[in-house]
Amino acid sequence: MSSNNDISSLKPWQKKLNEVIFGTETKAGRWFDIILLLIILISIVAVMLESVPSIRDKYYDELHVIEWVVTVIFTIEYFLRLLCVRRPIKYIFSFYGLIDLVSTLPTYIGLFVSGTSSLRVLRSVRLLRVFRILKLGSFVQDSQKLTRALKQSRNKIIVFLFVVIMMVIILGTIMYLIEGAYPESGFTSIPRSIYWAIVTLTTVGYGDIAPVTALGQFVASVIMILGYAIIAVPTGIVTNDLLQAQNQAPLNNKACTSCGKDGHAVDANHCKFCGEKL
Amino acid sequence: MSSNNDISSLKPWQKKLNEVIFGTETKAGRWFDIILLLIILISIVAVMLESVPSIRDKYYDELHVIEWVVTVIFTIEYFLRLLCVRRPIKYIFSFYGLIDLVSTLPTYIGLFVSGTSSLRVLRSVRLLRVFRILKLGSFVQDSQKLTRALKQSRNKIIVFLFVVIMMVIILGTIMYLIEGAYPESGFTSIPRSIYWAIVTLTTVGYGDIAPVTALGQFVASVIMILGYAIIAVPTGIVTNDLLQAQNQAPLNNKACTSCGKDGHAVDANHCKFCGEKL
Amino acid sequence: MSSNNDISSLKPWQKKLNEVIFGTETKAGRWFDIILLLIILISIVAVMLESVPSIRDKYYDELHVIEWVVTVIFTIEYFLRLLCVRRPIKYIFSFYGLIDLVSTLPTYIGLFVSGTSSLRVLRSVRLLRVFRILKLGSFVQDSQKLTRALKQSRNKIIVFLFVVIMMVIILGTIMYLIEGAYPESGFTSIPRSIYWAIVTLTTVGYGDIAPVTALGQFVASVIMILGYAIIAVPTGIVTNDLLQAQNQAPLNNKACTSCGKDGHAVDANHCKFCGEKL
Amino acid sequence: MSSNNDISSLKPWQKKLNEVIFGTETKAGRWFDIILLLIILISIVAVMLESVPSIRDKYYDELHVIEWVVTVIFTIEYFLRLLCVRRPIKYIFSFYGLIDLVSTLPTYIGLFVSGTSSLRVLRSVRLLRVFRILKLGSFVQDSQKLTRALKQSRNKIIVFLFVVIMMVIILGTIMYLIEGAYPESGFTSIPRSIYWAIVTLTTVGYGDIAPVTALGQFVASVIMILGYAIIAVPTGIVTNDLLQAQNQAPLNNKACTSCGKDGHAVDANHCKFCGEKL
Repeated sequence: MSSNNDISSLKPWQKKLNEVIFGTETKAGRWFDIILLLIILISIVAVMLESVPSIRDKYYDELHVIEWVVTVIFTIEYFLRLLCVRRPIKYIFSFYGLIDLVSTLPTYIGLFVSGTSSLRVLRSVRLLRVFRILKLGSFVQDSQKLTRALKQSRNKIIVFLFVVIMMVIILGTIMYLIEGAYPESGFTSIPRSIYWAIVTLTTVGYGDIAPVTALGQFVASVIMILGYAIIAVPTGIVTNDLLQAQNQAPLNNKACTSCGKDGHAVDANHCKFCGEKL
Repeated sequence: MSSNNDISSLKPWQKKLNEVIFGTETKAGRWFDIILLLIILISIVAVMLESVPSIRDKYYDELHVIEWVVTVIFTIEYFLRLLCVRRPIKYIFSFYGLIDLVSTLPTYIGLFVSGTSSLRVLRSVRLLRVFRILKLGSFVQDSQKLTRALKQSRNKIIVFLFVVIMMVIILGTIMYLIEGAYPESGFTSIPRSIYWAIVTLTTVGYGDIAPVTALGQFVASVIMILGYAIIAVPTGIVTNDLLQAQNQAPLNNKACTSCGKDGHAVDANHCKFCGEKL
Repeated sequence: MSSNNDISSLKPWQKKLNEVIFGTETKAGRWFDIILLLIILISIVAVMLESVPSIRDKYYDELHVIEWVVTVIFTIEYFLRLLCVRRPIKYIFSFYGLIDLVSTLPTYIGLFVSGTSSLRVLRSVRLLRVFRILKLGSFVQDSQKLTRALKQSRNKIIVFLFVVIMMVIILGTIMYLIEGAYPESGFTSIPRSIYWAIVTLTTVGYGDIAPVTALGQFVASVIMILGYAIIAVPTGIVTNDLLQAQNQAPLNNKACTSCGKDGHAVDANHCKFCGEKL
Repeated sequence: MSSNNDISSLKPWQKKLNEVIFGTETKAGRWFDIILLLIILISIVAVMLESVPSIRDKYYDELHVIEWVVTVIFTIEYFLRLLCVRRPIKYIFSFYGLIDLVSTLPTYIGLFVSGTSSLRVLRSVRLLRVFRILKLGSFVQDSQKLTRALKQSRNKIIVFLFVVIMMVIILGTIMYLIEGAYPESGFTSIPRSIYWAIVTLTTVGYGDIAPVTALGQFVASVIMILGYAIIAVPTGIVTNDLLQAQNQAPLNNKACTSCGKDGHAVDANHCKFCGEKL
């Protein structure tokens, strides 16, 4: 979207519109975003309430009207966005453009394909926009730190999840062999047993499937203690990478011109080793 | 309360009272606080027991007497507090003053509005006072460190919770679409499905709502493993900020003799702001 | 036990016995400990099996014999310990002496007070002795590090648990007010509601008590997300203090005699700042 | 397998085969591994589906054919592996050789011992091979870091698990004494009570066994809060050791020119072993 931010080649009315729709610096721009967020919130609540049988029966018409008004507003807004950027195609495939598209499409799909109207809650993705309004605060910076750390952790988390998935496949199968003969325990097939192993290892523990034999309960105990111990691994990974990300940021990366040492704090005016001005 | 601590302008009997009620340095002051804590504990236990049908029927009169005695004691104590501070209005709106007010009010509300008598457990907030008695120990310092670290984490935790809430909205809706047709699974509306998604992602797992279809169980498995992995994020954030809060301590606490600024690293030979030798 | 380790004033047969019973350096000493551990394990398994109705009925005599043999062995062993230390009274009240006493007493209490025989599992405390056999390894050192870090964390963990307990009291009462009118939800009294709040906040989630109203499920969701976020706090505290404990250990606490700086690694022969021999 | 990598003494056709089967550098080698992984995946899915009664009845023949084809492919592949290494015996007992053996054997055991056919999912262990294909990426390095840190944590985790196991034995027995008289609670024997204690302490919480007495629920609450607090310990340990493993990297990787030792801190001017200027 960076190149779309260059609005100098736009016509005056486009510039004005761009400031209101995309900008958050002007008063109008901030209000536009706030009102949009409220409409999104209202529409999500409406979709949720529509799924509750008692409410749907009572307020069917009202919810229907809200849905149509919101759909019309979002359609207009989307076209206005395309109108006031320099390269509409590029905008459509940008990060926020895709979010807008993904969260607007289900509205129309719901009109033609019955049973999918609930997908309109995908609009909630647009709530991410709230962080743009809060840009002036430290939220964006904090999100960036988080994102950077999580990117660093990605590979290690994938290796970890891979091992976890292999563990639940093997442990689930072992439990199926042990408990499969007792239908009341619920271990009726390997996929169900693997589902149980995941429920147990992640310490969720619904209780819809639970071992009934002594051996099954013993193996389950081992799985639980295992799960209790290995939850430490992703936590350790993320903490670690967060710490690394944190430690990189606040350092001044200019070396002292006198003694050549670096590693000065960002607020340093003088080299802390030789006292020379930085 | 800082300005209220200046008790030099008070009358002698007010000074004495202030020492006993607010102070923890004198023997009388410590005993006052300890007895107050015991009364609070007794009153909380009484409120709890009153809610147990079998105990309420048997000991109705005794619990009623305790309640009235405690209410009278708290009322007298609150007015004594107002009497012995220099500026009562200022005290009422101070941190501990608000705690006292909030924890005393439900007693009277319970007398007039039926069904709210249980709110008297709000008194338990006053137990926070226990840390004032322990002031001499390292509890206050440790709480401050914790509070400072948690304040630093606030923004990042909000971003994290925001993403989690969006995830449970979308995942809950998807589960509603998958499981909604099977009433025995309990996914009868989107809000209920979102409730289930929260129960699952946080690894609580009651089991009152649980997927019954193979696809539903597969998506549930993904949510669980997701929840298992992302619990690492808040932990990483808090650990990290605690570490930062801790690391701020070993800063050199000598101020520069030239420019008067402090915050120098422990291995610094020269002031990083003006270059003067430390 | 330190002064009891001075065995020079003992008679030769006491010395020999002391070496076997307390020592782990000689072959006989190690075998004594290993056999003792096996007997403890056997006796714990016997106590457990005795509580299973079907096994108790079938193997009543065998379990009875094992119990009597083990009791006799432990009694003899305890008196032998007292015989071969210099000051038996001092031994009785030492750390391992108390463990031995606490784990032997239930055996005799069980003979006289019916219904308490299961307390014999307290013997399992003696399994702690396993770390003495492994003394040569790095287990003791690692336990010490853990213990040191956990001691440092104690105050902060107490503050944290105190806040958690206040939270569950208040949240439990709120849920009682919301759900109390629906007996099928299980929130029949404040203590039960507090029990539920603990079950939920700690993400255990049995499901024997679960909210049925929309408002109750909303408050429950807030509690869960709260519990999910605040689990980060004790983890952060312990990680932090472990890190501190770790960082303190490996430092050489001798200052350089030439430049006076300290902070050298334990394996350093020369000052890393000026090159002088340490 | 290092010595088996020396393929210079092999015949040309063996060299070629070795490159394809063991190597991942050539195109043929990568494709061989990818196809093998796909076959393993297919066979695992087939084993799982076979355990679902409705699917087994419908697709019995198809699943049977897949199983036989896969078994033949794996047998041929295993013998080809033995054919193209210099010392087959050594390969069989190498890390990947054992994985291949362990994951191939259940196929044949299943043919002769009925009821064990599900053990064929042990093949999933071979999926570990996926990391060999990704060798070029940073996955292997990340796994190594993880493995190194987890090795360092091993002793401390064992001490921790030992203490946890002693706790659940004692707590389980106490709960049996409290709740044993109420069969509806499910605490029918000490082993079952210990199983419950593990389910609770690890925050899994099935709900198939749950205390019904007030005292039992109080003790359960204590166990839960305990479990909530002590989960911090393994997390702290792993985070810590991960951090140590990471911090070993930033050591100065220049060796001393005088004594040749490395491992100096990054801010060191002089070799800490011989005092020579670095």
